[in-house]
Order: sequence, then structure tokens, then C-alpha cells
Amino acid sequence: MPGLFITFEGPDGSGKSTQVELLAQALAGRNPLVVREPGGTELGERIRELLLHRPEGMSAEAEMYLFMAARAELLETRIKPALAEGRVVIDDRYHDSTLAYQGGGRGVAAAWPAHFPKPDLTILLALPAQEGIGRHGRSGKSLDRLDAESLEFHEAVAKTYDRLAEREPERFLRLDATADPAEIHREVMRRVGQLL
Amino acid sequence: MPGLFITFEGPDGSGKSTQVELLAQALAGRNPLVVREPGGTELGERIRELLLHRPEGMSAEAEMYLFMAARAELLETRIKPALAEGRVVIDDRYHDSTLAYQGGGRGVAAAWPAHFPKPDLTILLALPAQEGIGRHGRSGKSLDRLDAESLEFHEAVAKTYDRLAEREPERFLRLDATADPAEIHREVMRRVGQLL
Repeated sequence: MPGLFITFEGPDGSGKSTQVELLAQALAGRNPLVVREPGGTELGERIRELLLHRPEGMSAEAEMYLFMAARAELLETRIKPALAEGRVVIDDRYHDSTLAYQGGGRGVAAAWPAHFPKPDLTILLALPAQEGIGRHGRSGKSLDRLDAESLEFHEAVAKTYDRLAEREPERFLRLDATADPAEIHREVMRRVGQLL
Repeated sequence: MPGLFITFEGPDGSGKSTQVELLAQALAGRNPLVVREPGGTELGERIRELLLHRPEGMSAEAEMYLFMAARAELLETRIKPALAEGRVVIDDRYHDSTLAYQGGGRGVAAAWPAHFPKPDLTILLALPAQEGIGRHGRSGKSLDRLDAESLEFHEAVAKTYDRLAEREPERFLRLDATADPAEIHREVMRRVGQLL
């Protein structure tokens, strides 16, 4: 596709939204499309509600397919059209999250469907599992369903992210999330600059 | 699995619900679990609402994953537990519907995930596409989103169903939906009797 598709991945508390904002500001002159998952469409926001505020829980498989439904709608109605116009798209979480959380974390057989385009660049903000939980706790943000998981779960997610990055070194830029945010942003800009 | 998993497939208007009811009555002494898709769980019913009453439409891929999310929840919370107890499960539509409607009808790359068990028996009530639309119109039922499709769409669905039945002749019992309902039921009972 003629545009540039950039995704951010990593556990909650790894500073994804800060980096998304810094990148969006740096590329403001190019009018980037900035989205987050799950959400970004009316259907996606309704699915987000089902996913995040459900005290009675749901099966890991249903969870996976709901994330994928929201992703499919966002892709077809917003991301693919923006890329076709040659725009930069910045997505806060994409299908690597499903592979890491539902696949690695919950053990569901998760694959990458052919109709989900691969990003041109995926920035992984890597954080030891224990550190992610600590950061999140300190921020005072209320814990949603996905965060209220065991340390083992978060360790499995972190390991899966690392394996994905090792398997596709061209696509992934793995950065230490504990570094200074301004320094992380400089590393992101260096790679994005090469691609633009 | 120790139970018996029976699914009914075919276009709307092919008499699936009549045959599901006749089979459920015939097996009443065995306390079968009778479900329909999408639905059968609280989450599934909320997904059904999203799917069937959405004038603004949605992408074919999002539609597919919503059906699969509802199916996954029904499988994990009701179908698999019932089969594990040795019960008969009768499901009005299952994953063959996704292959026929989203795959064949809408052209989405649809596969059969390993975590969806194959039914022991799938009864396909086959109907020429034109006939299905005619029957539905005559019943006076209001047309939902999925029914308000072109004849080509329904023809692609019917062809895909036939290909699926040809590929797995052991699993499928393909019956002419225009036959007398009592005669169709006798054919169903003959095959179910062999499996019980």
C-alpha cells in the first residue's frame, strides 16, 4: 500500500500513548490518521464496551474474535482507505496484541489472517512483566478486566512479544520502555525518517 | 467427545427450525441441548443485536468475526460442557454458515479454526437460491440485513454449502428442503439412529 502503517505494541504502562502522541505531533504536517484498538469506529466502540466492562467475563476465544471484529471494521472503514490515499496511519495496538495476549497469554490458537495487512513498522515498547504491573499500579488508573491478570499472564505476553520481534526483525523496532521518553521518541523518529 | 453434536445448515426458508424442533421432540427423553446461532448466551445475544439490526451495515470481515465470537462463547460455556456430559447437542447453524455466507457469499477468506470442534453430523437442507427467497417472502417475516441480499449472493451460498457437503460426505447429510417435512424428519432420524 502506498501509505505508511505504523503500530505501537507493548504492555499497559509501557508508555505507548505518550509515544503515539509524540509521533503524531512530529508528523502533524502530514495529517496522520491516529487510532487505538479496540475502537475507532462506532461498531468498534460498542465492541470495546463489551470487552472491557464485563464483570462476568467471557471465554478467551470469544474475547479474541471480538478484538478481531473491531480490528476488521477499523481496517476496512478507516485504515485501508487512509493508506490508499498515501497517508501515515498510527495505530495504538494491532494484531500483534491478539497474538501476545489471547495467543501467548491465554493459550488460544491465534494466527495472522491474510486480510489483516502487516504494518510497515511495529514499535514494541518492551517492559519486564513485574515493572508493567508496578507502573500501572502507581498511575492510580482503575484496573480493567485485562489488567487484573496474574504475573504469569503478563510474563507470557512479554515473552510472546519478544518472540514476534525476533521472528520479524525488519518490521519490529524493539525499544526499552524504561528509557527516557524523549530518547525513545528520538529512536522512533530515526526509524520513521528512514521509511518516509 | 462422548456426546453427539448435530448441526443444521441451509438458507433461511429451508425449514431448519421445523426440523430442529421435530428432532428435539424425538430425542426429548435424552434431554438434548438445543441452541441457535448467533445467540444462546448473554454475550451471544448482545452480539446478535449488533449483527442483525444495524441499518448502517458493517464490513464483511467484522461480521464474520462477530459470528465467530458468539460461536466461541456458546461452544465454551454450553456446547462443550454438554458434550462432555454425554448429551446430544442440536445447533441451528454453526461454522459451516460462516464458510457459506461470509466465505462463499461475501468472499472473505474464511477457515475452520482448530478450537471449533467438527460436528458428528451436519444436516444440510438444500434449496435452490430462488426458491429460498420466494419462501421467505411468502412467510411474511420481516427481512433482516442478511436476507436482504441479491440472488447472486444466495446462489454463492448454496454452491458453497454443496461443495462443503461434497468434501465431507461422512459428516454431511444433504436433503432436499422442498420435500415433505415429515419425510425429511424420517431421513434425519434414520441417520441419527445410526449414530446413537
